[in-house]
Amino acid sequence: MRAIWLENQQVSFEAEVEMPVPQPGQALIRVRLAGVCSTDLELMHGYYPFTGIPGHEFVGEVVDAPGSEEWVNARVVGEINLACGICSSCLRGNPTHCTQRKAIGIRDWNGAFAEYMILPVKNLHVVPENVPDEAAVFTEPLAAAFEILQQIPIAAQQSCLVIGAGRLGQLIAQVLRLTGCKLQVVARHPQQRALLTQSGIACISEDEVEPGCLDIVVEATGTPQGFYLARKAVRPRGIIALKSTYRGDLTVNFSSIVVDEITLIGSRCGPFPLAIYSLANGEVDPRGLIQASLPLEQGLQALDLAARPGGLKILINPLAHEMESSSAGLL
Amino acid sequence: MRAIWLENQQVSFEAEVEMPVPQPGQALIRVRLAGVCSTDLELMHGYYPFTGIPGHEFVGEVVDAPGSEEWVNARVVGEINLACGICSSCLRGNPTHCTQRKAIGIRDWNGAFAEYMILPVKNLHVVPENVPDEAAVFTEPLAAAFEILQQIPIAAQQSCLVIGAGRLGQLIAQVLRLTGCKLQVVARHPQQRALLTQSGIACISEDEVEPGCLDIVVEATGTPQGFYLARKAVRPRGIIALKSTYRGDLTVNFSSIVVDEITLIGSRCGPFPLAIYSLANGEVDPRGLIQASLPLEQGLQALDLAARPGGLKILINPLAHEMESSSAGLL
Repeated sequence: MRAIWLENQQVSFEAEVEMPVPQPGQALIRVRLAGVCSTDLELMHGYYPFTGIPGHEFVGEVVDAPGSEEWVNARVVGEINLACGICSSCLRGNPTHCTQRKAIGIRDWNGAFAEYMILPVKNLHVVPENVPDEAAVFTEPLAAAFEILQQIPIAAQQSCLVIGAGRLGQLIAQVLRLTGCKLQVVARHPQQRALLTQSGIACISEDEVEPGCLDIVVEATGTPQGFYLARKAVRPRGIIALKSTYRGDLTVNFSSIVVDEITLIGSRCGPFPLAIYSLANGEVDPRGLIQASLPLEQGLQALDLAARPGGLKILINPLAHEMESSSAGLL
Repeated sequence: MRAIWLENQQVSFEAEVEMPVPQPGQALIRVRLAGVCSTDLELMHGYYPFTGIPGHEFVGEVVDAPGSEEWVNARVVGEINLACGICSSCLRGNPTHCTQRKAIGIRDWNGAFAEYMILPVKNLHVVPENVPDEAAVFTEPLAAAFEILQQIPIAAQQSCLVIGAGRLGQLIAQVLRLTGCKLQVVARHPQQRALLTQSGIACISEDEVEPGCLDIVVEATGTPQGFYLARKAVRPRGIIALKSTYRGDLTVNFSSIVVDEITLIGSRCGPFPLAIYSLANGEVDPRGLIQASLPLEQGLQALDLAARPGGLKILINPLAHEMESSSAGLL
């Protein structure tokens, strides 16, 4: 099959990767659409020494599921963490923190930038009929945005600031808006601002952030500057949610965090059911974030596009080649 | 009056400091006992550029209160933050985070290492008759320990680790024990261990901390080593409470905090009523922490003693001179 291949931090397009074979309890999935995430780009910078097919945001259809034939033909999305089920984290009910976990397209498991992929059926969720592929492909990052609401009870009228309006920041803003909070987003790039403004979400610049006033700040840039701005913005006894990983360490004044009784919360993978539900009932529509959709053969260009400052969501469409569609380029 | 005086990070004993005069709404308090806190020692290292009488842990009696005569003769402890009442933090109900706050013995307000001090009557709490001075003098740091329970709901059987068994760590351990949690304390010094063991609290060494297993870790050393041990000890989705300030900045891997979804909570001043209640009903008895009680004239020796590694609580007794007691030395 065709696939994007990552090895020694280099990506390549491969026309003849061996077709994966599902074991009992696993599903063979034909990928319909995959999304490029910043984590995919970080893998190319050595975030984790992964060799294989990257990509963990996808929607596909099950074409084989030995022993679980009821899944065949289902249109699905999939949880990215493959948990052991028996470690202390799993037994505590935190499979996304399994100490032995694999993660599709990130750690020890081939991902979605391919024609086909394998996942345990227990990782799958059916996509409701009324959710198009172009929305369903956002389920994983949207679930990560919903994780904030799982961790922090946000009340209507609380002041919330999202720092960063890229792929993830946009989804976070859409999710936070559901709470009725007073929402502002720090956005740098015109297209990011335009998207937010269309949704009725207030954009401000970094200079417009009022120091020490915000109840809740979500840091979604993964940059030291973003963190320091979040620290400056949050009020005493306020909360900073950290949604992005950082290259290298940060140097932070923890005394002021103690004196101001600030809470910092790391936030990663989230609840798929909430994300799917919000897509199905139309509360969240992420399709405005799609900047381009490229066939699998152009996967390297897709990664290049996604790495550009201010870029939004780039999709990879493994079916585009088969359909000989030429309309799948830049939207 | 006699007092300890701090100026340019130097302390001295002064025999003739001007007697303070209470304004309406304020109380003149005769200090019966004061406690030396690590913050007092940090002021001598430039933590905050304070000039005046240090000391913020005390019990005393009101000798004058113009316009609030009902307070006269009351035995009292006092909240250390003097709040403006009209800033955003005060209006939000967080007077300990008043943006204009003064703090007794720390910022713009003379403290308790003196024969007399002044406090607004709204800062005062009456000490129940059955609580002796030697216990009441711990109210402020004990309230700071209770702050943890205000911020983190700790359930019975959750695993909790306190790092550091000095003055504050000991009080934190006594407070956490009230929750029925599985409690361990990292203690270095024999006398710290002995105190904990007497109370039936488990002591371990740094090497005995099991990595990534603890539900809740309280960092009470204020050292980078303490922080890194806390980070190592906490489980994914666990909580680290930071109870001490740090000299200088810390360099921290925030990516792992995001991936493991760790919560960090800064924790400072706490609820006096809870502390007083726990002293009155005997749930907490801090008197075992008293290492020495010295008269005011020996305040500099008291600060020296408190600065020694492994030291516990050193008290300053302004009445000892008047009573001509010679039994107030090392216990």
